[in-house]
Amino acid sequence: MNTEKLLFRQLFDKETSTYTYLVADAKTKDAIIIDTVKEHLERDLTIIKELGLKLNYILDTHVHADHVTDSYDLRKATGAKIVAGAGTNLKCADILLNDNETLTFGNITVKALATPGHTDGCTSYQIEDMVFTGDTLLIRSCGRVDFQQGSAENMYNSLQKLFKLEDATLVYPAHDYQGRTCSTIGEEKQFNQYLGNNKSKEQFIKELNELQLPMPKHIKVSVPSNMICGEKVISA
Amino acid sequence: MNTEKLLFRQLFDKETSTYTYLVADAKTKDAIIIDTVKEHLERDLTIIKELGLKLNYILDTHVHADHVTDSYDLRKATGAKIVAGAGTNLKCADILLNDNETLTFGNITVKALATPGHTDGCTSYQIEDMVFTGDTLLIRSCGRVDFQQGSAENMYNSLQKLFKLEDATLVYPAHDYQGRTCSTIGEEKQFNQYLGNNKSKEQFIKELNELQLPMPKHIKVSVPSNMICGEKVISA
Repeated sequence: MNTEKLLFRQLFDKETSTYTYLVADAKTKDAIIIDTVKEHLERDLTIIKELGLKLNYILDTHVHADHVTDSYDLRKATGAKIVAGAGTNLKCADILLNDNETLTFGNITVKALATPGHTDGCTSYQIEDMVFTGDTLLIRSCGRVDFQQGSAENMYNSLQKLFKLEDATLVYPAHDYQGRTCSTIGEEKQFNQYLGNNKSKEQFIKELNELQLPMPKHIKVSVPSNMICGEKVISA
Repeated sequence: MNTEKLLFRQLFDKETSTYTYLVADAKTKDAIIIDTVKEHLERDLTIIKELGLKLNYILDTHVHADHVTDSYDLRKATGAKIVAGAGTNLKCADILLNDNETLTFGNITVKALATPGHTDGCTSYQIEDMVFTGDTLLIRSCGRVDFQQGSAENMYNSLQKLFKLEDATLVYPAHDYQGRTCSTIGEEKQFNQYLGNNKSKEQFIKELNELQLPMPKHIKVSVPSNMICGEKVISA
């Protein structure tokens, strides 16, 4: 990462172990924010203001099941546009990006990579030598596929797609539950517990489908609230 | 930060909001680790092993009052040397660094900056365009001065010393309680709540000494345990 060109801030929500990312053109101060958490509006607005940033876009990697996005409030406060992957069909978004579509902020380009599996609309965002992988590729792990439109086969294909990026690409996921903040594509190809060392597609699908996990605590609130971009916290 | 030259990993302990830092020469794989947490030995050793790193030094910024260091166990597992600031008088350390003393790992130099205030032995570590500030300079804040050898006057002088570093220097503290992961010297000069906007020394000392804070939950275990580099968890 070139910190002279990019301003980069990783932010954390302890309650849900969610990472939010603020990325800006260090010269023009045009910025985007990825995967916000509703409880942190004030923190995030303070940083944006203090750093003198102009927020262009508010991106979500998917319709989260564990926390409510803050995109609605951030749009209201800054005028930035809400962005998501086309597969989300998110009516509250201003822009829905198809696979390989790009957006520009300042002199920086962000490219959408459709990476369904955890949900149909899951999208990773590539910026320079970084990729923000949401709940698709996690550090040594991957997102679960047992609710919303989860599909182990789609997840396998999406991880293979991400693994075609350069080995040195920095991986920034939506979560880590062990306090790790980043990884690289090269590392994950080698050490990912589900897909490392060239595990077969069949074995991967079998293992993922056999996981017995409790439902996320807040799924009945998070999903419907996120379908309206966090405008209100509502229950299914 | 030049990620082609440096391998950098920030790690987090949710229980105490403590940051641990792993920094390596990306070419030679010689590495150091700063401010470890005893509960994360396995996580940290796994990362070191998977990344193929050779741990040279285990550094602590000070004798922590809120968590127990993992330096003893890490030394045992890797053969790396334990390092702290001279002001700690830490008998279990292999190397005590005076102000401006340096160590080298691979082709990277780490420089000790004596920054007393939170404790007498508090030391910041400067590597390239980064500074690891322990409990001296925190994001928009600074360490408390009401236990161990706390001194508001020393803290003021130490912060002034850090503020002489270049504005673009990345600040990595030992803690943040709001999920922020880094700052810069320039930002802190402007926005630090205790010292921003050229607050007078007198005002700073008055405000810091008037803080009414509860004692850290684990101080009676953490301090004596850290005086033996976390070899055992003991109680005062």
